[in-house]
Amino acid sequence: MFSIGIDVGGMSIKFGLVNDRGEIVYKTSVKTANSPEQVILDIFDKVDNVLSTNSLTINDIDGIGIGCPGALDVVNGVVVHLPNIPGWTDIPLVQLLKKRLNTQIKISNDANVAALGEVVYGCAKNYNLAVMFTIGTGVGGGIIIDKKVFEGGYSRGAELGHATLIMNGEPCTCGRRGCIEQYISATALIKQTKTAMLNDKSSAMWKFVNGDLENVDGRTAFECSKNGDLTAIKVVDEYIAYFGESLLNMFNIFRPEAFIIGGGLSAQGEYLTNKLKNYCEKFDYGYKNAPRTDILTATLGNDAGIIGAAALLK
Amino acid sequence: MFSIGIDVGGMSIKFGLVNDRGEIVYKTSVKTANSPEQVILDIFDKVDNVLSTNSLTINDIDGIGIGCPGALDVVNGVVVHLPNIPGWTDIPLVQLLKKRLNTQIKISNDANVAALGEVVYGCAKNYNLAVMFTIGTGVGGGIIIDKKVFEGGYSRGAELGHATLIMNGEPCTCGRRGCIEQYISATALIKQTKTAMLNDKSSAMWKFVNGDLENVDGRTAFECSKNGDLTAIKVVDEYIAYFGESLLNMFNIFRPEAFIIGGGLSAQGEYLTNKLKNYCEKFDYGYKNAPRTDILTATLGNDAGIIGAAALLK
Repeated sequence: MFSIGIDVGGMSIKFGLVNDRGEIVYKTSVKTANSPEQVILDIFDKVDNVLSTNSLTINDIDGIGIGCPGALDVVNGVVVHLPNIPGWTDIPLVQLLKKRLNTQIKISNDANVAALGEVVYGCAKNYNLAVMFTIGTGVGGGIIIDKKVFEGGYSRGAELGHATLIMNGEPCTCGRRGCIEQYISATALIKQTKTAMLNDKSSAMWKFVNGDLENVDGRTAFECSKNGDLTAIKVVDEYIAYFGESLLNMFNIFRPEAFIIGGGLSAQGEYLTNKLKNYCEKFDYGYKNAPRTDILTATLGNDAGIIGAAALLK
Repeated sequence: MFSIGIDVGGMSIKFGLVNDRGEIVYKTSVKTANSPEQVILDIFDKVDNVLSTNSLTINDIDGIGIGCPGALDVVNGVVVHLPNIPGWTDIPLVQLLKKRLNTQIKISNDANVAALGEVVYGCAKNYNLAVMFTIGTGVGGGIIIDKKVFEGGYSRGAELGHATLIMNGEPCTCGRRGCIEQYISATALIKQTKTAMLNDKSSAMWKFVNGDLENVDGRTAFECSKNGDLTAIKVVDEYIAYFGESLLNMFNIFRPEAFIIGGGLSAQGEYLTNKLKNYCEKFDYGYKNAPRTDILTATLGNDAGIIGAAALLK
């Protein structure tokens, strides 16, 4: 059977027809409309389009999964609040969609859905218990227990980026200080890179960004560290320590079988995961006695949102 | 039906016959023997005693639950390692007990079992999702999801005392630095109290302990803060900040319906929980939008180990 996965973003809404192997066999998208009413009409329209283009009816699919940013009430299918799309407060999305779409409809947070996709169809499909950080502007968290999303109480758990790494540390957008997000998000890495560059005008990183700090991104320090730039190496080493401590916290809390890293940084692959493994081996709880947690990079990439949403039906 | 709950400790092993309301109707205990072989013989003997004294046979009970300290393999019923009892390495406890006891036998870590007891029969029986800290020499963690123990991968999760509060902070016995345990265990509170007393020889805490630092315990600062001693108030306020930050981390990770505090400190009751609630309300993720997590103190006290072990059969 097929499922339809829908990835709701602030800029666009992506739709995919996903088969039982987690492969997208048809894909379409629409610009995110300004009002919830129009978004719902667009979803009706695009679901019709996905079905008819593939000679299917609503009875031919297992259901529709939807990944959304923001605060959700997953049990009742309500979008409590979407931070970046105006007008989305207490919208009973599933109920409204069910008026026209007579199939199972499930929603979950986008970071949860990304983690689920990796565990059901992606890099962690051999594991049942996994934790994921999606590294971007912030740090999204996903917890998968027995191959299902752990939503936490009131569907509001898994805000893993907002556990503290350093009490009274860097101020965070959430109102606390010292949250993980302030040390290992791409935003934080860029800030750490820029600070190091300003302190070392001879660093090769300046050439890498054509002398313009505005060109610094999450790759700058990593790529230049591979070429032996000492300042870049120092930035990466410090970042790995922050990241490693964050991982060890999750290891001691969940002792997951796998830890998954998503977002742009995952392109660093084993260069990143080997450094993290080395760090974690040194300081894991009980040292050599601690069971092994594999550290993996996400493999579903830009399709993670669609595939993960479809995996909500599994 | 009844269950038998067994609480294995370094000094003694306690046995209780527990009814369906979580009440202990018969209790006995034995000094913890030096060898696993003798401990198993003692368990056979005491289980026989519990049954015969109450005119029951093994067929009249739901099963036997065992709470153990240390590292366990819960799935296979193996004690991987007990830190404080010699000779306990890779002992297939459940298999050995089943040779003579033909009933369901389950084991779990003592901190998990304490949490389960509170959620099934104690202060949190109206909740399904709860997290517990047991405050003692260290900090034990228990995670209850859908009224069941979340063991974590390889039965080795929920080491909540060994998530960091302050990266690179106080050295911890686990090999890391800055673990929660180093800030909110009774051991840590006593150290914080002693340091403050040495810096203020006029503090009323000196009178409270009859001028002898050796008499300082987890109550000293709390009791003297109630009487207005400014140095004691400062110790308590700092301790509440450490504890509050630790709670907020667990809130953001699990968003539990209830957070339970066990160990000697729970005797402080609402004096403690009101301070923690005030702290957490100020800094909860998303502030007023965050769903409420109740903060409770454990009510099963010294019987928590027996009652919680029996709850493994529920």
